[in-house]
This record gives sequence, structure tokens and C-alpha cells, in this order.
Amino acid sequence: MEAGGAQREAAQPVLNVSEETPVAGVLRAVDTEEETPAAAGQVVTPYEVSAPVGGIDYEKLINQFGCERIDAAIVDRISCLTARPPHRFLRRGIFFAHRDLNTILDLYEAGEKFYLYTGRGPSSESLHLGHLIPFMFTKYLQDAFKVPLVIQLTDDEKFLWKNLTIAECKRLARENAKDIIACGFDIERTFIFTDINYIGREFYENMLQVQKRVTFNKLKALLGITPEDHIGKVIFPSVQAAPSFPSSFPHLFSGNDQLRCLIPCAIDQDPYFRMTRDVAQKIGFQKPSLIESSFFPALQGENTKMSASDPNSAIYVTDSSKQIKTKVNKYALSGGQDSVLLHRKLGANLDVDVPIKYLNFFLEDDDELEHIKKYETQHQEYKEGRMLTGEVKQRLVEVLSELVATHQRARAQVTEEMVDAFMALRPLPNMFG
Amino acid sequence: MEAGGAQREAAQPVLNVSEETPVAGVLRAVDTEEETPAAAGQVVTPYEVSAPVGGIDYEKLINQFGCERIDAAIVDRISCLTARPPHRFLRRGIFFAHRDLNTILDLYEAGEKFYLYTGRGPSSESLHLGHLIPFMFTKYLQDAFKVPLVIQLTDDEKFLWKNLTIAECKRLARENAKDIIACGFDIERTFIFTDINYIGREFYENMLQVQKRVTFNKLKALLGITPEDHIGKVIFPSVQAAPSFPSSFPHLFSGNDQLRCLIPCAIDQDPYFRMTRDVAQKIGFQKPSLIESSFFPALQGENTKMSASDPNSAIYVTDSSKQIKTKVNKYALSGGQDSVLLHRKLGANLDVDVPIKYLNFFLEDDDELEHIKKYETQHQEYKEGRMLTGEVKQRLVEVLSELVATHQRARAQVTEEMVDAFMALRPLPNMFG
Repeated sequence: MEAGGAQREAAQPVLNVSEETPVAGVLRAVDTEEETPAAAGQVVTPYEVSAPVGGIDYEKLINQFGCERIDAAIVDRISCLTARPPHRFLRRGIFFAHRDLNTILDLYEAGEKFYLYTGRGPSSESLHLGHLIPFMFTKYLQDAFKVPLVIQLTDDEKFLWKNLTIAECKRLARENAKDIIACGFDIERTFIFTDINYIGREFYENMLQVQKRVTFNKLKALLGITPEDHIGKVIFPSVQAAPSFPSSFPHLFSGNDQLRCLIPCAIDQDPYFRMTRDVAQKIGFQKPSLIESSFFPALQGENTKMSASDPNSAIYVTDSSKQIKTKVNKYALSGGQDSVLLHRKLGANLDVDVPIKYLNFFLEDDDELEHIKKYETQHQEYKEGRMLTGEVKQRLVEVLSELVATHQRARAQVTEEMVDAFMALRPLPNMFG
Repeated sequence: MEAGGAQREAAQPVLNVSEETPVAGVLRAVDTEEETPAAAGQVVTPYEVSAPVGGIDYEKLINQFGCERIDAAIVDRISCLTARPPHRFLRRGIFFAHRDLNTILDLYEAGEKFYLYTGRGPSSESLHLGHLIPFMFTKYLQDAFKVPLVIQLTDDEKFLWKNLTIAECKRLARENAKDIIACGFDIERTFIFTDINYIGREFYENMLQVQKRVTFNKLKALLGITPEDHIGKVIFPSVQAAPSFPSSFPHLFSGNDQLRCLIPCAIDQDPYFRMTRDVAQKIGFQKPSLIESSFFPALQGENTKMSASDPNSAIYVTDSSKQIKTKVNKYALSGGQDSVLLHRKLGANLDVDVPIKYLNFFLEDDDELEHIKKYETQHQEYKEGRMLTGEVKQRLVEVLSELVATHQRARAQVTEEMVDAFMALRPLPNMFG
């Protein structure tokens, strides 16, 4: 699965990144209407995120994909229903789009439950911060709604898309599972599975049900798959679709085929789930609901790509405090001015400033975040002394070092036995408790 | 699996039969060289067998597919190596083509073993005689060579291609397994599996290995799959390929990844296995060998189709003696002349005579078969009294009634527990014994 793909290595916003899929002439997320210059040529699929300089136009993407914006009313409603403050990813519009989220909330309000489904394509040894985002958010949703969660590790996908052996993909899946478990998921409500170990029987039946109702041409239009592609790429979308249906997990949801599914993911995964939603009711299930995030930027800014081959493009959960400090200070794109004098005069350009973007993701304190932003941008604050980029970066290093150190401590506690336990085929008797 | 498909409902020789796959403009088994009129327009894939009037030109098919003819030397060699007479399907050229059969025989002679793989797509309640052919022949091979056998029941394929529910395909697979078991397979050397129950893990890994090395365009050329087809059709070829590789069955062949596989099937399945052979060595396995049969005709003759919707087009293993008698007498296409007088003068046209074709498949006694044929064809025998079609049909009714009654007795002994036992995931410790 590439769900939450923007938090994975394959889908960082970048000018015409296409590792796998030829772009020419393919209409996907791109519509052909008159466009603002900023949005012209914007392509977003699970395999490719490309945008003109200026980055992704999310408003346009919502229109193109046909999903809905998460507004303040929805955020308030979630807060009310769960009797807890909304996650900062909601407060700050990081998870910004949805499909049928209100249906889930209506039913939840009426006393019905649902399940969560997210995933990761395990193609790298260690995760970077972007990878953590869907899992941090999914953990919040699990805690807040007290619902079960299935996490798909798509070792098959990574074998199909990358130059890796199956054995390596399986190993990476287990290693990544440890990082995921370290996010704090409740073992009584969480089933983690790898495709190669789990696919079969009811799950495979749902793959077949999807396959029978999706043509090659449909995938071509949705995902940009071409006849020159190997057939693994044609097959995988049905693998990512299947966990959206409760009968794929008979040990969890037997006899509960109408249970609804909520999928937290990055918006580049939307095409997979548009396909899934198209077939859901035809094969006897509810359409899965989606809650979708924007993309997490590389250190070098929105228009570059976090890349495993360039360790300085991202902060990894394995980085030391010292590495974090070096990376942030040396590589994080600043929106500040070239000289202190100019900076004091003009302030920073927050539209491109990576430290502020990262703080927006990871600094919990809203007041402090607002304070920093103000100091960097509002001219009328000048006399009181504007912050310099170095100061903002210093605060970011503190925030990230604490986050990463906390993760590392949790990760160190995760044993092979715990991985086995999360992956064990078992009922979860208290999963809705 | 449609292996041995000609013995299944999908692939009877017929004029332009294409239930599923559009034909127009697709080059598959059809080559574009200058052709004899008889062979022009001949199309043979697992989904479609179409030939001009006059039927399939098998010699041409061998050239088109690039397989080899099974000659008398190979038949003799098999007889020698197995110390038993060759099966009548070999003696009479019914299994007429092969790929790398000599390699299997060379290794067998040197003391090495191999395994057999065949299968069936379970789309009908009861099998007709054509369906039995690959299983009768595979049983002979198993007994003669004393080797293990895997039998794939492709309930997934039938769901994807037919208007059937998954539940119905699974039920049919179990029912068909009983007919297959009734053919007399040795439970100590035979593993029967249904795709939906068995696909996963090592088998799925081999599917992935194949998928990664086959493009959509390749399948289009081989099988006539089009972009308008649903993606299940794109996926299935890798499902049929996987059993050709021993590591798909770790409970049987663990640590024996170079074990060779011999696949008895009808020649319409050759495209699947050309694809399989193309990738085998790239993914670390031996190419499977093939031994391929011609097609079993419908009662109405070579250019018609055995069809579940017309029970009079085939003899079913559930037919009574009376039904067999009626079908043979009423529907079996005769090559005899319109009047006794003319028949006594001209004899029958054995090229179209279905009773003789059926006797060729099922009458064990070579001398008697030759005797009947002579009486029907050789003018110089006229004075001694030529047989009439009615007499030949009478003999055929006896042969088929005995065959079907024997099958029915064996089928009646097959319990659900026996099906479970053949399908149990278990080692077969004496499978090469």
C-alpha cells in the first residue's frame, strides 16, 4: 500500500517526479479545464506527485478528485463526539479533505462503530518523519473513537515497484512494523498484516470481486498505468482495495459485512479508493470513507523530493539529535531574507519556509506556533524584535529531537514477539470497547 | 486453470467461438504467413478455439506455437522407461505435442524425478467425457512414473470469466474434485487445491515473480486480452503459472527448487505456459515441460462446441446408459452415407465421423479399433460385409456405458472426507516411492 503515500518516499511533491509511470499524454488527476497557472500540469496519483513551481494546489485537487474539504464544523464535531481536543493535524488543516466522513460521524453519534484502515509500503529500512504522519493521526483516531484498526504492509507492492527481492521486502515490512508499533497502537484493537503473509481466502475473494469490476482502461485513466507496464501494477490496486471491506478480516469482523471503514491516508492515495468506492456497493459493501492529508515537504522545500538516496532530504526516525541539528540548520529551506537587516525589514516568506512548515506538523502548542509565525511575518511586530530563521530552526531542532528521541525509546522496546503478536491472526474481543 | 481446456467447456473447436475475448485484429496463435486454406484464420487460446471448416490444423498449430510433435520414438521411449505399454492417448497421437519432454525423460532415465501439474476450471456441476481426458492421462503418467501430482482447481478463474458467484465456484470445485478423485489418483502422491483456499505466501510470491516480468502488451499478444477487459483476466495467467514452480508447494517440495514439472494439458493452454516458460529461468526455476493433447469433439462434430446449455452436445459422466444410447444414436455426427446401399459402396468418411473419433479416445483394444475402421473405410473389404454406422454406434454405446458406469461407481465412493484428505496441506513422504 502506498496509502499515506505522501508520507512515504514515492510521492513527495516535486516537479514531474515519475520513477515508474510515464506521464506523457495521460490524464489522471489532471483535468483539462482552464486552470490557474499554479495548478496547470498538476498530477497526483499514488505513483506520481508533480506540480508547477508553487507546489500542489490543494483546493484544485479537491475539485479534481471530487472529495470535500474538512471545515471547522467537522473539526468541532469530531472534538465533541470524542470529548477531546482535535488533533493538531485537524486543527491546522493538515488532514484537510474527506469523503463521507459525515456519514461515519452520524453513525458513530447514533452508537454505531466503524474500523480504521491504513498502511505502508515498506521500501526503506527506516522511516522519515513524513512516514509517521498517517500513523500518528491514525493512533489519535483509534484512541479517540475506540475502534479497531487494520494496518496493511504492502511488501508485494514494493517488490513489484522497486528493485528489491521479495525476501528484502518481507524483512523491511517487519522492520517497519516495529516503527509503526512504536507509535503506540493498542494491541487489543490493532491487526497488522503483510500482504504476502496474509493474502488468501476471504481477502483474495474480495480482490477477485474488485478485479471483476475494474477494467484495464479504468486503471489507465485513474492511475496512469500503461500497456507497457508489467501486470503486477495492474493487479495491485485490488490488493489495496480489499482491506476496505470488513469480510477481508473474518477473524475480526465475521458477520459484520456492513461495518464501515474509515481510511486515513495522504491524498495521493485517493485514486485507489475512488476505484474502491466505485465497486463497493456493487459487491455488497459500504463505500469506505476517507480522511486525507496534504503532503509533508522535504527539507529542501515543497518542490523537491524526500529521497532515500539523499539522506539530507529528510529527518529519519533513526537520526541523532546532532544529525537533526545539522540537517535542519544546513538543509531546511528558509523563507528568511538574505541579511538580518533585510529580514528585520521584510520578514520571512512563510509560503516556502520549511522550519515553519515542520513546526506546523509537529509543534503541539498552538499559541507558541502562532507566536513564532507572527514574529516572522507581521511588520507591526518589528519594533518588539522579529525572530531570525536561526532562532526558529533552533526551536524546530528541539521539537524534532524530542519527537525522534521519544520514538527511538519506544522503538527500542518493540521486540520480534510484539511484532508477531500484532500480526497474529486472532479475534480482538474488546476492539470496540 | 483452463489447462486441458479442450476437455473443458471453454475451448471446443468451433467456428469463431469467443464468449469472452473479442477477436478482431488480435494476433495470437494466428500467424500471418501464407496459409493453406484449411488453416487460415485458426485461433487457439485458452479462451477461444476457432478454425475454418475442416477443423484445427494441428500440424500448423505445432509450427505456430513452436512446440514439438510426439513421435513414435518418444512413445517407445516412455514405454521402455516405465516398463509398461504406452497409454492409448499416446499410441493414437491424442497427446500429440510436447515441450522439453525429452529433458524430463533424460533426467528420469538418469534417476531424477519430476512432478506433474494439471488442473481444471470448475464451471459445471458434472464433467463430460472431454473433461476426463487430461485426468485419465495424468493418472497413467503418475502410475507409470511414480511421481507426485498437483491438481489446481481454478475457482477464481471461473468466477472471473463466468456469471457465477464465488460461493458457487467454490462448491463446483469441490464437486469436480470428487470426479477427479474418482479417476483413481493415489492419495499418497496427489495434492488437490482450489485457488481461493490455497493462494497465499510462497504461491503468491511466485505469482508476483511472474507478474513483475510480464507486461500487459505481452498478454494481449499471447491471449488476446484487451484494455476493455476487466483486470481479473490480466491477473489470472500468473495464477495458472505459479504451480509450474516447485516452491509454490513448500509442504511438498521444500528445498527442491530445481525439481522439474511436467504439465499434461490440451494444446489451447500452451499460451499460458509459453508465458510461464519465458519467465521461469529469470526467476530461478526450470522451465516446465508440457505434454499436450488435441481437442475432444462435441457429439455434433469437430466444428461445434460442447455446451452446458445443450446437454445433447456431450456425454456427461452422470448420464445413464439410456441417455448415452439416445445421445450417441440421435446426435453423434456420422460419417456414413445416406443409404445403406451408398454406404456399402462408398464407406464412411472417418474425418468427420464422431463415433470413430470417440472410439479412438475410449476403446482400449487397438485391434478392434483397427478392425472397425477398416470395415468402414476400405473398399476392398466390401464383399466381407462393411459395418454400418448403427453397428459402430452400438459398440460406442457399450464402451461409453461401461466407462461411465465405472466412473459413477468410483464417484459414489468419494466422500467429503476424501476430498478433505486430498486437499489437506500435508507432506507426501512416499511421493517418489
